[in-house]
Amino acid sequence: MKMDDYKRFATEGYRVYVPNISIACTLLGFHDNKLKVLLLRWKGLDKWSLPGGFMKQDEDADEGAARILKERTGLDVYLQQYHTYTSLNRFTIDEPSQKKFKDTFGMEVLKGHWYDKRVIGIGYYGLAEYAKVTRIELDMITIDSRWWPVDDIPENMLFNHHEMIGGAMKALQRDVAHEPVCLKLLPSKFTMAELQCLYESILGYSLDRGNFRKKMMNAGILKDMGESTTRKAHKTPHLYSFDVRAYKKALQSGIIFKLQ
Amino acid sequence: MKMDDYKRFATEGYRVYVPNISIACTLLGFHDNKLKVLLLRWKGLDKWSLPGGFMKQDEDADEGAARILKERTGLDVYLQQYHTYTSLNRFTIDEPSQKKFKDTFGMEVLKGHWYDKRVIGIGYYGLAEYAKVTRIELDMITIDSRWWPVDDIPENMLFNHHEMIGGAMKALQRDVAHEPVCLKLLPSKFTMAELQCLYESILGYSLDRGNFRKKMMNAGILKDMGESTTRKAHKTPHLYSFDVRAYKKALQSGIIFKLQ
Repeated sequence: MKMDDYKRFATEGYRVYVPNISIACTLLGFHDNKLKVLLLRWKGLDKWSLPGGFMKQDEDADEGAARILKERTGLDVYLQQYHTYTSLNRFTIDEPSQKKFKDTFGMEVLKGHWYDKRVIGIGYYGLAEYAKVTRIELDMITIDSRWWPVDDIPENMLFNHHEMIGGAMKALQRDVAHEPVCLKLLPSKFTMAELQCLYESILGYSLDRGNFRKKMMNAGILKDMGESTTRKAHKTPHLYSFDVRAYKKALQSGIIFKLQ
Repeated sequence: MKMDDYKRFATEGYRVYVPNISIACTLLGFHDNKLKVLLLRWKGLDKWSLPGGFMKQDEDADEGAARILKERTGLDVYLQQYHTYTSLNRFTIDEPSQKKFKDTFGMEVLKGHWYDKRVIGIGYYGLAEYAKVTRIELDMITIDSRWWPVDDIPENMLFNHHEMIGGAMKALQRDVAHEPVCLKLLPSKFTMAELQCLYESILGYSLDRGNFRKKMMNAGILKDMGESTTRKAHKTPHLYSFDVRAYKKALQSGIIFKLQ
């Protein structure tokens, strides 16, 4: 909906979109040793939502998810479909928010429009290198964007997006053992402590530092870059990067599934 | 559509179903040391399909999948949503089959009906204890049902159901490390060889017999039932059952992920 207005979307969108099928993207980035999710705040409402939208008639859901995140971030991020949400009450907006929307936009948010029906949500998670997401384009509905720590997302979210973020995290916990998740989230060089923090953010529990280092080194998936970061003056932790081939092979054979 | 006819479905189904959203179930059973999938053959066509149908307006997809398999098998089977298929050309039927359908039913299979539009397919896999599926109810469209080995399914399948079975197997390969998949597929008592065959059927490759036995025994998830089967006169293999609690705990901690 970039460069478009809500009225045109509400009156003519049925020509472009499939009315029952929406897509929501849980875009994740790793920053300040925390896994964070990108949320957008709606104009006139104190409500946040995931980047999303309806699937177009001439695209499949993978293409729709890629389009949605490209419109917001300008980037092609790694995307994975994880679950489709179909509960009868998921696509609703509470009355006070409906009123605020009407006050702001001069029209109804749902009522009477072509999308005021049973709408299912196909959930995707996206993995980005945080530093590469340098700008977030808003649309006519949204007025603010922010990265929220996944363990501290706001309560005031629209639709069932709270549940969808939970589902994305659960899928990521499962997929971290099978897909090169960490490769997509980390910069090309990182410290062992950063890698451990990332695993802990995904898994949701702490890992023993010594064991973690040992298992990672034994897995043979890291290249020691022979450099040190200057980020901490009193320490000189080594920087590592992934041996991509070895990493992918280790995932296939299940070697790094169990970290503790 | 049990007890209904296709004409009523085609003319009045829009009152009951969501037109864009279908569900297809890959029901798996373990029989004769092979993993098998239940397929239905369409009347008048030499084509097979998965049990499936449209999602009802008053149910979510989980309920829809359960309803579809209950109508066919009479059973509540373990179901898991694994992927939603959205490609633009997935819900099509080749011209010769359309003609055969018309010759058989006296009406078009797709053209002109309320479901002749963009239809996505939410994929579920179901796991059943094979011996408990004692009857398959057919509907007005289908004339035959058969369990096919997953590694030898027919080429002549409708829609993208071939792809959907492949997706179900890929999901199962991933989930066997996290969910009590074998518990759902095996009878309450089984031999070590049967358990190994099941794992091999799911994973798609052979496992070393000695290693497999050792890993399974070490995992502490099996109870030796102290009985022997009489299925092979010259041998007396032990029968085992799952220690359900230990099995689920082992899955959580990832112990039995790597079998080789």
